[in-house]
Amino acid sequence: MSILTRPILEIDFNNLLDNYKQLQNIAKTAIAAAVVKDDAYGLGAEDVAKLLYEKGKCRHFFVAHAFEAEKIASIVPQAKIYVLQGIGEDCLDAFQKNKQFVPVISSPEMFAFWKEHKINGVKPVIHIETGLNRLGFREHELKALSDADIAEFSMVMSHLACGDEKDHFMNAHQLETFDELKNLYFPDIPASLSASDGVFLGEKFHWDMVRLGAAMYGINTAPYRPNQMKNVVRIKAPVLQVEPLAKGEFVGYSATYRASSERKIAIVSIGYGDGIPRSLSNVGKIFFKTHGKLQESRIIGRISMDNIICDVSNVDGLEVGDMAFLADDFYTLDDMARDAGTISYEIMSRVGKNQRFIRIKKDAA
Amino acid sequence: MSILTRPILEIDFNNLLDNYKQLQNIAKTAIAAAVVKDDAYGLGAEDVAKLLYEKGKCRHFFVAHAFEAEKIASIVPQAKIYVLQGIGEDCLDAFQKNKQFVPVISSPEMFAFWKEHKINGVKPVIHIETGLNRLGFREHELKALSDADIAEFSMVMSHLACGDEKDHFMNAHQLETFDELKNLYFPDIPASLSASDGVFLGEKFHWDMVRLGAAMYGINTAPYRPNQMKNVVRIKAPVLQVEPLAKGEFVGYSATYRASSERKIAIVSIGYGDGIPRSLSNVGKIFFKTHGKLQESRIIGRISMDNIICDVSNVDGLEVGDMAFLADDFYTLDDMARDAGTISYEIMSRVGKNQRFIRIKKDAA
Repeated sequence: MSILTRPILEIDFNNLLDNYKQLQNIAKTAIAAAVVKDDAYGLGAEDVAKLLYEKGKCRHFFVAHAFEAEKIASIVPQAKIYVLQGIGEDCLDAFQKNKQFVPVISSPEMFAFWKEHKINGVKPVIHIETGLNRLGFREHELKALSDADIAEFSMVMSHLACGDEKDHFMNAHQLETFDELKNLYFPDIPASLSASDGVFLGEKFHWDMVRLGAAMYGINTAPYRPNQMKNVVRIKAPVLQVEPLAKGEFVGYSATYRASSERKIAIVSIGYGDGIPRSLSNVGKIFFKTHGKLQESRIIGRISMDNIICDVSNVDGLEVGDMAFLADDFYTLDDMARDAGTISYEIMSRVGKNQRFIRIKKDAA
Repeated sequence: MSILTRPILEIDFNNLLDNYKQLQNIAKTAIAAAVVKDDAYGLGAEDVAKLLYEKGKCRHFFVAHAFEAEKIASIVPQAKIYVLQGIGEDCLDAFQKNKQFVPVISSPEMFAFWKEHKINGVKPVIHIETGLNRLGFREHELKALSDADIAEFSMVMSHLACGDEKDHFMNAHQLETFDELKNLYFPDIPASLSASDGVFLGEKFHWDMVRLGAAMYGINTAPYRPNQMKNVVRIKAPVLQVEPLAKGEFVGYSATYRASSERKIAIVSIGYGDGIPRSLSNVGKIFFKTHGKLQESRIIGRISMDNIICDVSNVDGLEVGDMAFLADDFYTLDDMARDAGTISYEIMSRVGKNQRFIRIKKDAA
């Protein structure tokens, strides 16, 4: 028996690299850019950028904020780093200091700011709106651009709203709109429409560059079929205590679970403070491996900041110090997200940032 | 007009300190220990520990994990730091190196480990179970302790399950059980039963030490009446774009929102990557201050990693670069949590850890 206290986060960089290469293969001649915003969805932007730059020959990275570009700049010296939230007063100096950084301009107001503060040798990307109704120039704003304005840009991009639903009418609509606007306003520069999900929608969606994020991190961005990607994230945590629970006893905050018969419970050293969604309370699953067999248990009561309680009545031979498996190849973050009523992107982004994990980088860069 | 890109997190350390003092007043002679686990609920354990140690004269801190104790040890040199998840192989060396650290022992198995690795000059706390059915010795395990075992401990503690519901039967039940077990097994050492919520349940719940966390951070742990604490967390983010939306148009991923009439929308530079719960999609609120007036808007469409879209049809005079208020004194994290279907603890723990915020420490330590 071991006595352990800390949860463990394993990031499989081997699988991440394989996913990148597989996606590059599918995207064929399109440039495979890597999206490492939000600290590479929480998995560590420096690690991911280094891996893809050195072993994946990736030379195009996307971040959300300029300070995120600063964190990886020296790791990817020959690469371009596109900044999706663009340029403004609070990050102008970062762009001025580093000509690797390429702002993505998404509004006339931001473009006016750009023209006032232009940086020699840098040609921004223009983000155009095609149906998501998030960031991007609307058509009436494109009409107002002069030829000189148009000549400012090095690439035109947009973003799909429903790329994870193969037959959604929005995909064809956005593709058509993008094609039209690109030909009308930006016939001479490269174009990028798709993130991970668009890669699986066929060659028409690839254009000159695809922006690989979620699928590279193992998320199934084509949930209409089994995941083609390898799993990247594994989470486990030690069992701190195994106890009997008498019929009628309550479990957890606000006493939301009551035992209808005698049960056996385990207290696992991980909670929402570590990024596990509290919405898994009374519905989530935790797995154990005892006697060489995978066993499933149900989370009971409310998840607390540091601990989760689960019903292990049917788990034979469980001992204090055994590992509880929260996410693994057999129950991925996609599965957890489905049970939690959210998407795995959100969980990944939360889990990865937590310092409480002992971090294992499998075959790290 | 300003062009800005990054969200802003303001932590009001002045109010945090006031809350600590107010809680200490309510707890009267009981020691007011500070709970700074999970990086002080995400707000920064070093900052909070320094503030409370220097300006609040706090000498007792609680963390979850030994590595969290290591982060604050040199900041609170004369204080004791209690480690709630206890001691094990993965953190033994931390305890051996620093005798400020006091393990909280919650199971016979962990106690056996302690006896094998005892650290001279350190007397652990024993955690006993009184109704939460989470960590702690059950009564049959207390019975098995010898007199010498009992003499190992410096304090006995337990934890309330329903302290935020004033009249919940569980409170009286846990108090009675704690009283019984304490008198039976630990008549000669100090006792601690209550976290923030228990402080408001009356003197009987205070014992020798209260463990102040949530309420100190401004969370209403007595939601049966208006919050007595001052607000600590404020979140804002810049508007990146303001656009018309035609009748029939869709907004956001999976096109979950469709405009039933002509609308005006704003795209705000913050998302679930920054810790805003994705469950606020299509239901949450965002506020603006234009013409010196507070104006409310509704989040529409799915929240994405870096952006939130809201309906600002009724917000007059809104411009790109204006600030959107996500949480403030007039709409606290408690309010946001209610709209998101969770508790503010979870949001605070997520928001605070995100590096993407420009962090403003108001009247910082």
